[in-house]
Amino acid sequence: MFKVAVVGASGYTGVELVRLILEHPEFELVAATSTSENGVPISDKYPSLLGYTDLKYSLVSDLPVRDLDLVFLAVPHTAAFDIAPSLLEHGISVIDLSADFRLKDVEVYEKWYNVAHGAPDLIERAVYGLPELYRHQLVELAARRVQLGEPALVACPGCYPTASALAAAPVLAADAMMTGRPVIINAVSGASGMGRSATDASLFSNVNEDARSYNVGKHRHTPEIEQIYAIEASQHVPVSFTPILIPITRGIVANVAISMLPGLRQDVIEVIYQTAYSEEPFVKLLPYGQMPQSSSVSTTNQAHIGYFLDENTDVLVASCAIDNLGKGAATQAVQCANIVLGLSETMGLERIGVVV
Amino acid sequence: MFKVAVVGASGYTGVELVRLILEHPEFELVAATSTSENGVPISDKYPSLLGYTDLKYSLVSDLPVRDLDLVFLAVPHTAAFDIAPSLLEHGISVIDLSADFRLKDVEVYEKWYNVAHGAPDLIERAVYGLPELYRHQLVELAARRVQLGEPALVACPGCYPTASALAAAPVLAADAMMTGRPVIINAVSGASGMGRSATDASLFSNVNEDARSYNVGKHRHTPEIEQIYAIEASQHVPVSFTPILIPITRGIVANVAISMLPGLRQDVIEVIYQTAYSEEPFVKLLPYGQMPQSSSVSTTNQAHIGYFLDENTDVLVASCAIDNLGKGAATQAVQCANIVLGLSETMGLERIGVVV
Amino acid sequence: MFKVAVVGASGYTGVELVRLILEHPEFELVAATSTSENGVPISDKYPSLLGYTDLKYSLVSDLPVRDLDLVFLAVPHTAAFDIAPSLLEHGISVIDLSADFRLKDVEVYEKWYNVAHGAPDLIERAVYGLPELYRHQLVELAARRVQLGEPALVACPGCYPTASALAAAPVLAADAMMTGRPVIINAVSGASGMGRSATDASLFSNVNEDARSYNVGKHRHTPEIEQIYAIEASQHVPVSFTPILIPITRGIVANVAISMLPGLRQDVIEVIYQTAYSEEPFVKLLPYGQMPQSSSVSTTNQAHIGYFLDENTDVLVASCAIDNLGKGAATQAVQCANIVLGLSETMGLERIGVVV
Amino acid sequence: MFKVAVVGASGYTGVELVRLILEHPEFELVAATSTSENGVPISDKYPSLLGYTDLKYSLVSDLPVRDLDLVFLAVPHTAAFDIAPSLLEHGISVIDLSADFRLKDVEVYEKWYNVAHGAPDLIERAVYGLPELYRHQLVELAARRVQLGEPALVACPGCYPTASALAAAPVLAADAMMTGRPVIINAVSGASGMGRSATDASLFSNVNEDARSYNVGKHRHTPEIEQIYAIEASQHVPVSFTPILIPITRGIVANVAISMLPGLRQDVIEVIYQTAYSEEPFVKLLPYGQMPQSSSVSTTNQAHIGYFLDENTDVLVASCAIDNLGKGAATQAVQCANIVLGLSETMGLERIGVVV
Repeated sequence: MFKVAVVGASGYTGVELVRLILEHPEFELVAATSTSENGVPISDKYPSLLGYTDLKYSLVSDLPVRDLDLVFLAVPHTAAFDIAPSLLEHGISVIDLSADFRLKDVEVYEKWYNVAHGAPDLIERAVYGLPELYRHQLVELAARRVQLGEPALVACPGCYPTASALAAAPVLAADAMMTGRPVIINAVSGASGMGRSATDASLFSNVNEDARSYNVGKHRHTPEIEQIYAIEASQHVPVSFTPILIPITRGIVANVAISMLPGLRQDVIEVIYQTAYSEEPFVKLLPYGQMPQSSSVSTTNQAHIGYFLDENTDVLVASCAIDNLGKGAATQAVQCANIVLGLSETMGLERIGVVV
Repeated sequence: MFKVAVVGASGYTGVELVRLILEHPEFELVAATSTSENGVPISDKYPSLLGYTDLKYSLVSDLPVRDLDLVFLAVPHTAAFDIAPSLLEHGISVIDLSADFRLKDVEVYEKWYNVAHGAPDLIERAVYGLPELYRHQLVELAARRVQLGEPALVACPGCYPTASALAAAPVLAADAMMTGRPVIINAVSGASGMGRSATDASLFSNVNEDARSYNVGKHRHTPEIEQIYAIEASQHVPVSFTPILIPITRGIVANVAISMLPGLRQDVIEVIYQTAYSEEPFVKLLPYGQMPQSSSVSTTNQAHIGYFLDENTDVLVASCAIDNLGKGAATQAVQCANIVLGLSETMGLERIGVVV
Repeated sequence: MFKVAVVGASGYTGVELVRLILEHPEFELVAATSTSENGVPISDKYPSLLGYTDLKYSLVSDLPVRDLDLVFLAVPHTAAFDIAPSLLEHGISVIDLSADFRLKDVEVYEKWYNVAHGAPDLIERAVYGLPELYRHQLVELAARRVQLGEPALVACPGCYPTASALAAAPVLAADAMMTGRPVIINAVSGASGMGRSATDASLFSNVNEDARSYNVGKHRHTPEIEQIYAIEASQHVPVSFTPILIPITRGIVANVAISMLPGLRQDVIEVIYQTAYSEEPFVKLLPYGQMPQSSSVSTTNQAHIGYFLDENTDVLVASCAIDNLGKGAATQAVQCANIVLGLSETMGLERIGVVV
Repeated sequence: MFKVAVVGASGYTGVELVRLILEHPEFELVAATSTSENGVPISDKYPSLLGYTDLKYSLVSDLPVRDLDLVFLAVPHTAAFDIAPSLLEHGISVIDLSADFRLKDVEVYEKWYNVAHGAPDLIERAVYGLPELYRHQLVELAARRVQLGEPALVACPGCYPTASALAAAPVLAADAMMTGRPVIINAVSGASGMGRSATDASLFSNVNEDARSYNVGKHRHTPEIEQIYAIEASQHVPVSFTPILIPITRGIVANVAISMLPGLRQDVIEVIYQTAYSEEPFVKLLPYGQMPQSSSVSTTNQAHIGYFLDENTDVLVASCAIDNLGKGAATQAVQCANIVLGLSETMGLERIGVVV
């Protein structure tokens, strides 16, 4: 059993991590921190957990650092600057769900987040936690952990980048798109993506029976998507990203529109996707032309992908559905933790999602 | 007072027309037909109307054709082939909300709807009922009605084409886009767009807490959008159209992504939109960069439009929110009826939408 | 035209009043106050109002008291203590939607609201604004306003009391219930009833896909319901009241279960309700045994009532559906304002609700 | 491993059983029948199951009766009359989720379901599958199965009776209520309770943003509730039952109002409930006065119970939240199956529900 903790455990992603850890056969939850809820039983805050844990929220300063193997950081950006280095120094692996170590270029981070980076030395060390694309890097962290005793630092992707990357990576890597054309991403997302801070915009009466695009061209996940796309395509790929808030609690459907080289046939596209994902335990390809539903992957680490090549426009629409709190956050973090700890990658993540 | 009827009045669009006619100061509702509900009081089917009308559903064959000025057809495609000619022969103006007279090219209709067109002679006569773009043609119908006694035939646009056209028309007409690049449209829509026929896909438990793209590259509104865009841009504009079903009852937000000529400035875009819409009673432009919400226009004939030019990609995202049953169907039909009958265009359409 | 203002116009009820006033043929909106939004155009806060008003939020201290006929107070309890007397002194009629003048017994108010009453002298003067039950008192206010120049003070009912009173009043007044038995009220309500203050409980992700009873036996509307029931039944009627929060924005359905005298027949019950409500413009009785839907009355001042007498238990279940922001708050306030200003009671309230 | 099948596996309850069986460590799913979907892969119909099963829907007539230990019947009433006897004859245990064997009095069944009972001989043999109240009878079935080779027949309770029984049973059994007073039950329920048959009433646009009571005094779960209450209270307890449809997919909150003997104290009530449920793995008692949320038990077999004794009316409101497809149907069926097969009662039912 590995001893793990969650920092920022009263938010939506944090408590999802708590649930996953409680169900994980090789994890023992030794602490769950929350500044605002310090001392409160977790199950008071989240009655779903009644009977599953008696743990109370505690403070970061009370973390039993001598007795921890791994910590999940479910914190807003900048909050990891102090915590992560300190944990690493104690030999504790860190799965960071904040944005702080995702972008490899400090200047890009500082431009988009409008703040000085507080731990630039750690950026290179951090591995971007998208196993379907960067598994070998995560496995290398596992090796260094065992062989050198070096704790791992994983920067877990944002929810939109996860969906956008999984949808487009195979065709980008296959050099099948028209160079220079922007990739147009539209992604609908549930309200839990706004987090648990109560604001006017996240009130039920303001979200219900409404849809609205927001932060068009300005969303902070844009450079993260561009970073992944550049790696896959081996060149800069301009991205136009439009997120849309819709009245669901969980779920993202990202539609990625890519101008393809003319004359590509459907079966080539199918081969490209099947080659990329047929062995992936958490990616399911739908029959050609069928599009995924966010409900199909709710509460799980699954990504469902559908795609359609419109021959009239040579535009490929690749659609990826994930749970923004699952594959877009907490379950993917557990998947990364499994890898860096040398466990089976799917451990604790096998349960079937909600069917109805 | 003009005597009007609604054919197909038990569906969502049909009953919305009933409501609008009941509130319209110059319309008298003399009949509302429904094959399935024949003989049933409308307010039994829709208790919201209790106390507002005692009318019962009747059959098309019982329409008092000698005593009617105008009929709204809220019917599925092919259903207008028989009814429209017959009404026109009786001198009755027809506002057709089906798809039957929208497409000017019979072959395009027959390809996309996979059925022979049953009244091709009427296609040329029909005016496409999008007043913000084709008001002069509608006014001409009004003139011919008065001067020649010729009843009008209006083909009301689909909901997605209305939103997609209003969002993009100004920039297309301004020759500001990069020629040859496809326009990428993603549009979220409420479940009422599926109509009142009970199917598995429209059940509450299948729509709630879900989002899914559907008919990607194959939706029948695509050729309609391309027809409008070709007129505005004076050339063929390839369109990639992705509709997305989300759990709201009413509302559409269409995000139109257009690759613009490099170097365009924000203020030019603003002038283009303001020139196009500043005098329009039913179009509201939001401050630059702010995006519209579907709830803001619910139950009304309003279209709210926002736009943002991403300088990194030269992609303009223009977003238009309408009510799919309002500006996307019933209220726009009333707007058209007002014009062809020589009434004030806004009559019966002034009421403010739901604020909360 | 009467010059009116809304105090507390940035909340849900307040902005609903703004909309109603803008549409009212005899009201001119001269001010809408909001401490938090002072200086902001109302249509910035609520884009639905774009094009309908240019008014900006102002402060209570800036109210043009020499130029006002009537003010709606859409404020939390205790906030009316200072404002109401001051307005009345200026000869301005006050329609108060707070709880401050609803309860006739100061001690009951102070017990349930746990605060000293700040204007006990006004309690007797205030008329409880439920026109279907107390129209004559409201008409008397109108008479005193005209004849004596005395401004009116109306204490508008809470949303739950409105629905609970309309459902039960006829049978209570008919001496048909078993004396001494408690009346059991269960009422589901939409989230807008929690107001616009952002709290954890009102977040979308906490309300969506959930139902929960709250404040059982402790809700502050209980004494208000008991006050009405005592008047109607001419004796104390114990009330057990359970409110239930459900994921809708607007709407209340109150189910009132009353133990009736044995042997009552269905037709007697029907006569009792028809006698009470057949002339009421805003109450609709459904056929015996059919129950009302909250959606049927959304955005309106209508109350739909259904009832069923279970012969096995002699329990009558009377169910009343209203819009909590409409008949439960803003439209009822306008109805009261119409009466005390000598206007037609239905003025500005005729529009049909959302049908779909 | 026990070999099990689900009859009626394309409905909501049926597919929930499929999911539970796939996750159950001692169950092997050998068949899932559906007349309408015969031959279709289950994961085509329910993409959530992609990658978890390749099984196709089959017909009841194709059930491998020589190779089955237990069958779940997720069928409408009357459908079990033929299937259940046939399976029992083959020595296969039957967990019946239809209403056919729940009511012990044939006449009551025939009156409420308005149909002749097709297998009255089996009624006595069937055990009512509510383990918290009738565990010993289920255990006896297990014993007879092992010792005599007699297959078990369990009649699983309806969703409303489960919640209503668990809320009230402890106080009924404690002789603490006022004899002769009706118990008033109001229960809100999600739309999945209407099943997967597409009807007008279950369309998204008709359920969303609506609440409505239905079948007041006439719901077929009423005699089932009265049957349980009579056993617990050792006398007839009249029940007034009002179900309310609300826009959630899953979940029930049943509020049971019981007139108690005067003078009861809070701590006595607490002892009564704690005595009844402290050892139950699937019942959680909330702190006095706190009410349960349906979301807290979503997708699980948990029942959360809260209660409050109003001293002004001597009315106890006991509120029970369950998942109508979980503890109200499928998970409870698995709980029963576990017992009669001699497995740990909680096997396959331990997973934590959705927290957010």
